[in-house]
Amino acid sequence: MNNTFFSKFTPKETKFFPLLNGLSDIIINVSNRFCLCVETKIKGLDITEEYEAINLEEKRGDKITTEIINELSRTFITPFDREDIHELANNLDDVIDEINSCTKKIFLYDPEKLTKEVSEFAIVLKKGAIQIKEAVNKLENLKNEHKSIAFCCEELHSLENEGDDLYAEFIKNIFRDEKNSVEIIKLKDIVAGLEKATDCADHVGKVIRTIIVKYA
Amino acid sequence: MNNTFFSKFTPKETKFFPLLNGLSDIIINVSNRFCLCVETKIKGLDITEEYEAINLEEKRGDKITTEIINELSRTFITPFDREDIHELANNLDDVIDEINSCTKKIFLYDPEKLTKEVSEFAIVLKKGAIQIKEAVNKLENLKNEHKSIAFCCEELHSLENEGDDLYAEFIKNIFRDEKNSVEIIKLKDIVAGLEKATDCADHVGKVIRTIIVKYA
Amino acid sequence: MNNTFFSKFTPKETKFFPLLNGLSDIIINVSNRFCLCVETKIKGLDITEEYEAINLEEKRGDKITTEIINELSRTFITPFDREDIHELANNLDDVIDEINSCTKKIFLYDPEKLTKEVSEFAIVLKKGAIQIKEAVNKLENLKNEHKSIAFCCEELHSLENEGDDLYAEFIKNIFRDEKNSVEIIKLKDIVAGLEKATDCADHVGKVIRTIIVKYA
Repeated sequence: MNNTFFSKFTPKETKFFPLLNGLSDIIINVSNRFCLCVETKIKGLDITEEYEAINLEEKRGDKITTEIINELSRTFITPFDREDIHELANNLDDVIDEINSCTKKIFLYDPEKLTKEVSEFAIVLKKGAIQIKEAVNKLENLKNEHKSIAFCCEELHSLENEGDDLYAEFIKNIFRDEKNSVEIIKLKDIVAGLEKATDCADHVGKVIRTIIVKYA
Repeated sequence: MNNTFFSKFTPKETKFFPLLNGLSDIIINVSNRFCLCVETKIKGLDITEEYEAINLEEKRGDKITTEIINELSRTFITPFDREDIHELANNLDDVIDEINSCTKKIFLYDPEKLTKEVSEFAIVLKKGAIQIKEAVNKLENLKNEHKSIAFCCEELHSLENEGDDLYAEFIKNIFRDEKNSVEIIKLKDIVAGLEKATDCADHVGKVIRTIIVKYA
Repeated sequence: MNNTFFSKFTPKETKFFPLLNGLSDIIINVSNRFCLCVETKIKGLDITEEYEAINLEEKRGDKITTEIINELSRTFITPFDREDIHELANNLDDVIDEINSCTKKIFLYDPEKLTKEVSEFAIVLKKGAIQIKEAVNKLENLKNEHKSIAFCCEELHSLENEGDDLYAEFIKNIFRDEKNSVEIIKLKDIVAGLEKATDCADHVGKVIRTIIVKYA
């Protein structure tokens, strides 16, 4: 396609949607892999494979984000305001980075065990990834889809609230049940990262809501 | 008012000042409540009521911030640069979020006791809230009030320095006096949050100073 | 110079380059001082002098950053997009802040000893400072120097990767070797700050790369 006569006249702006979809696909991949990673760790097995797979995805995400930002400075007409695309790309990338960072912590800290809230957070992140993918996917068709996109954003906000509750529960339990302070240090750091990841997913929803207000 | 004939001609921009004042009122409320919360905790009493009240205020703050940002995208003429109002709203919201987050930590971690630096931080935050309210309130009359607004910003910066000193004192004392590492984890996290809250208040001052430079 | 007849006609934009160079000089100073500070601490000597010197540099950095941001709002023609200069200045300032914050932690926490990864991080930061200074220095001559500037940015990214590896190594070692949980709390916080400082240096590289894409 790149070399056909007509591709020269294809409006450049259409590049942004496939790139943003690419980022949301990576979020699906890392959240699935993260679930697998937590299950593997709970079984007491080695998580090197999952850790490396997520790390590779994170590097792919970085490349797409850079591509979007470079594209923004080269393209005259963009489908939404420059800064909205910029912020959306950065926020999608933040979700990936945060899940990657949590995986790295589990890998490096190697805690004796993971608590049940870690598994529950993994599921919350997976649900969030599905909402993000749907919302980003429908952005190209914002006028017709703004209601279903807004619904995804609301779901992301509910999941963030669920994350808050999970974190509160975790904190109450860990300070009551865990006597080994090194284990507390490790687990608190991991679960705080998971809560931050659900925050990042909610931020994606907030940026998309701003876009809806402006363009739908 | 919304339905009167004349309201159609009321310049939309005037909406921003009441909304920003609304945010600074919330900062006053949460900082007062936070003082109460610390006193209650020091007396060994239950802080659920204060925690829930601050949490409610934080949700109100979120709504006003969202309203400001939506208003920005709908309004053609704004009293200051779009991005300045955006940043100011976000920074005011950050102060509220950080005080809320500190309250939540005290509630969830339930440390054995609070150190004297926590009470001192609560007072610093209360003083900061008063400066923020005054500065934001006078923004509508920037041309005449720029000197007194700049003075508030300087005060916020002094309070941030006080916060730095308090944090340093806290760290020195806690590592010397506290032998229970779980208590150290809890208190260090709480007081680091308080120091961040005074930073956020100073950031509000910095954004306002930028506005003064441009418009006064 | 300010009062000569001709200075009135000097294009104002040229002010940005000396100010940005001033910030990168401060990064050189604080990274050199930080190396010295780590060596002094390892010898078991007092680091008050280094801590205070770095703190002074940080305050100077704040002033230059504020000057750049004020200048941006006063100047009509800027050499690059307003927001790029703004972000570059803030990112340079972040590097200084983070090194200052690490020094403060070493000073206040007063850990029993520093691990070898701390010394290695100090060298990574020194190398990063040199790349930042070169890249910022050549920005004024972007058209001719874009290749060598891009090379500096790649170097900063490699150093960030080195920082990641160092941090991973540190975590593995500390949780294996250190039995005192208070020492773990102290050192983990210090080394996490050092890793963040290499991240900040890489962010400087990313902003500069964006500028290259737009203007080279």
